Amino acid sequence: MRVLVTGACGFVGHYLANVLRKAGHEVLGTVFELEGKHYPQQTEFQTTSLDITNSEACQQLVQEFSPEVVYHLAGIAFAPLAAREFDRAMAVNVNGVYRLCEALPEGSTFVLASSGEVYGKVELSDLPLDESFEAKPANPYSLTKLLAENVVSYAARKRLLKGYVLRPFNHIGPGQAESFVAASFAAQLARIALGLQQPVIRVGNLEAERDFMDVRDVVRAYQLVLGAPPGTYNLSSGTSVSIQALLDILIDISGIDVRIEQDPDRMRPSEVREVRGSFERSLKAFGWKPEIDIETSLRDIYSYWLSRLTIEKANSYRDQ
Amino acid sequence: MRVLVTGACGFVGHYLANVLRKAGHEVLGTVFELEGKHYPQQTEFQTTSLDITNSEACQQLVQEFSPEVVYHLAGIAFAPLAAREFDRAMAVNVNGVYRLCEALPEGSTFVLASSGEVYGKVELSDLPLDESFEAKPANPYSLTKLLAENVVSYAARKRLLKGYVLRPFNHIGPGQAESFVAASFAAQLARIALGLQQPVIRVGNLEAERDFMDVRDVVRAYQLVLGAPPGTYNLSSGTSVSIQALLDILIDISGIDVRIEQDPDRMRPSEVREVRGSFERSLKAFGWKPEIDIETSLRDIYSYWLSRLTIEKANSYRDQ
Repeated sequence: MRVLVTGACGFVGHYLANVLRKAGHEVLGTVFELEGKHYPQQTEFQTTSLDITNSEACQQLVQEFSPEVVYHLAGIAFAPLAAREFDRAMAVNVNGVYRLCEALPEGSTFVLASSGEVYGKVELSDLPLDESFEAKPANPYSLTKLLAENVVSYAARKRLLKGYVLRPFNHIGPGQAESFVAASFAAQLARIALGLQQPVIRVGNLEAERDFMDVRDVVRAYQLVLGAPPGTYNLSSGTSVSIQALLDILIDISGIDVRIEQDPDRMRPSEVREVRGSFERSLKAFGWKPEIDIETSLRDIYSYWLSRLTIEKANSYRDQ
Repeated sequence: MRVLVTGACGFVGHYLANVLRKAGHEVLGTVFELEGKHYPQQTEFQTTSLDITNSEACQQLVQEFSPEVVYHLAGIAFAPLAAREFDRAMAVNVNGVYRLCEALPEGSTFVLASSGEVYGKVELSDLPLDESFEAKPANPYSLTKLLAENVVSYAARKRLLKGYVLRPFNHIGPGQAESFVAASFAAQLARIALGLQQPVIRVGNLEAERDFMDVRDVVRAYQLVLGAPPGTYNLSSGTSVSIQALLDILIDISGIDVRIEQDPDRMRPSEVREVRGSFERSLKAFGWKPEIDIETSLRDIYSYWLSRLTIEKANSYRDQ
C-alpha cells in the first residue's frame, strides 16, 4: 500500500518508515527542512520536504502521492518549545492535523501519534492508566496533543476517515536524542568508556518511575493497529521503572566504574512520581504488547552510542 | 467588581456589558476594530480595541485593567467563515482563549461563551441534550468551540482559574443580525409593514426545530453562573420550536398579509431535524431557566425592526 509518514526524520518516524519500506510498502516520508538538517540520514525510503503549516503544500502532496494510509508523526515534540511558542505549536500540532485530514479522500486511514502525556498529573490510585481515564494535560505540549486527538475524531466523523489515535508512553531506543534520559546516560557512559569524558556521570531526578518501551515495539504497534477498529489506544509496557534503575542497568551494561553527580540543571522536581499505562485495550484489539525487555533495549542503546562515538572519534583524528 | 467582556460589540456581549454596567460593576468591553466599524454603538460602558490574536496586547490589557472576571465572547461565530479560514478561526477562537487565560492571575474567573452546537449531529433519541452527552462537533466552527472548552479546562487546572463553559443554544433578541432566522423574518415583515418591500417574505427550510431563548435570559445566566461551581453548563429552553412556527408567530404579531416564498439560496438541507437541550444542570447549580417566552421575544424583535427601519427611512428622506 501507499503510506505517507510525516516527521520521517524524527526518532520514531525514521524507524517506522524504514520498517514499512522493508515490508514492501510504497513509502513517502516527509521532512521539515530545518529538522532535516539536524538529523543524520541514511533513509531507505523516499523523502520529500513538507511544511505542515502550509495548506496548499499539504493538499498538493496528498493529491500527488495519494496515500492510503497516513502516519502523522510530524509535530513539535519538545515540551519547553511548545510552551514558549504556543501559537507555532498549535499551528503545527493541531491545525496541521486538520489540514492533512481535510486533504485526504473519504475512507482513508489516518494514524495520529499522540502521547501518554495527555493523561497529565496522575495519582498513584489512577494507575495503570487506561484509555477511559479522562485526559487532563498538564503542559502546553500535551494540551496540543489532546486538541489534535479531537481533530482526528472530528475528521473521522466528518470526512469518514478511519482515525486512529495512539498514545505512546516513554519510548527509548538507538538513535534517540540526548535530551532524553536513557540516551543521555548511555552517551555519557560510552564517552567515559572511550576516554572522551571523566568517569563522572551527571544525572537529574532519579526517583521518578516511568513506563518505558523500546521504539521497535512502538513501531510494531503502528503497523498492527491498522487491523483494529478505529479508536484510541495506549502504547505502554504496563510496568514502571525508576530512572535510578535505568541508570543502574546501564552502568552494569557498560561495566565501568563511574561517580554519579547530581546536575542542578537537570534537577527539575517531578510533579508525578509514577506513570504506568495499561496496554489491555491494544492487546485485545490488535494483539500487541511490548516484547523487547528494558535490558535488551538499554544494551542496544549503549552499543549504538559506543559505535557512533567511536566513528566520530575516528573521524576527528582523521580530520586533524 | 472589575469585569472584562471581550467581543462587547457582538450581539450578546453588548447586552451583557450593558447589564453589568447597570448593576454597578466596573466594565471594560473589548472590540475588534474591524468588527466595531460594522456595529452601531451607543455603549454605556467603556470600550477598548483588542486583537485577541495579539499576545502582548492581551497581556498588557489584563495587567492594566486587572479584571476579577473575564467574560470571553470574542470569536469568529459565523460558521461559513470559520470553515473557509480555519487557521484564523483557530487563532481567534482557540489560541485566543489560551492567551487570555495565561495572562490572568491565579484564582481569576474565566467564562467562555461556547455553543450548544458542540453536540453536533444529534438524533431524536439523544434529546434533550445534557452536558454529559459526548460533544461531537459537526463543523469547523463548533470544532473550534470544543477545542476552546478544552483550553479552559486546561487553564482551570494549570492556572487555578475558576473556569466556566457555557453552551447557549439558539438565542434571539432585538439587535441580532439579519443572517439569523428570527431577525431575518422580523426585518422583512417590518419592511413590508413600512411599505419598503413587496408583501413577499423569503424563507429557507421551515421544518427544522430548534431550541430558542431570548438573549436577555442568556445574559442573566452569565451573571448567575458565577455563584455556581465551575464547570460546563447548557443554556437552553428545554423545548423546541419549528422555524415554521417562528414565522407564523411573527406574521401574527405583524398583523399583515404576506405571501411566503422559498428562497433557493436559503434552502440548505438541515442535517439535524430537531435540537433541544436540557437546562437541568443550570437550574440546579445556579437557579436559572429561561423566563421570557418566545412570543414576547419575537414581539420585541419585531418592534425593534419597526423602530430601527422607521428611523432609517426618516433619515433617508432627510438626506435627500
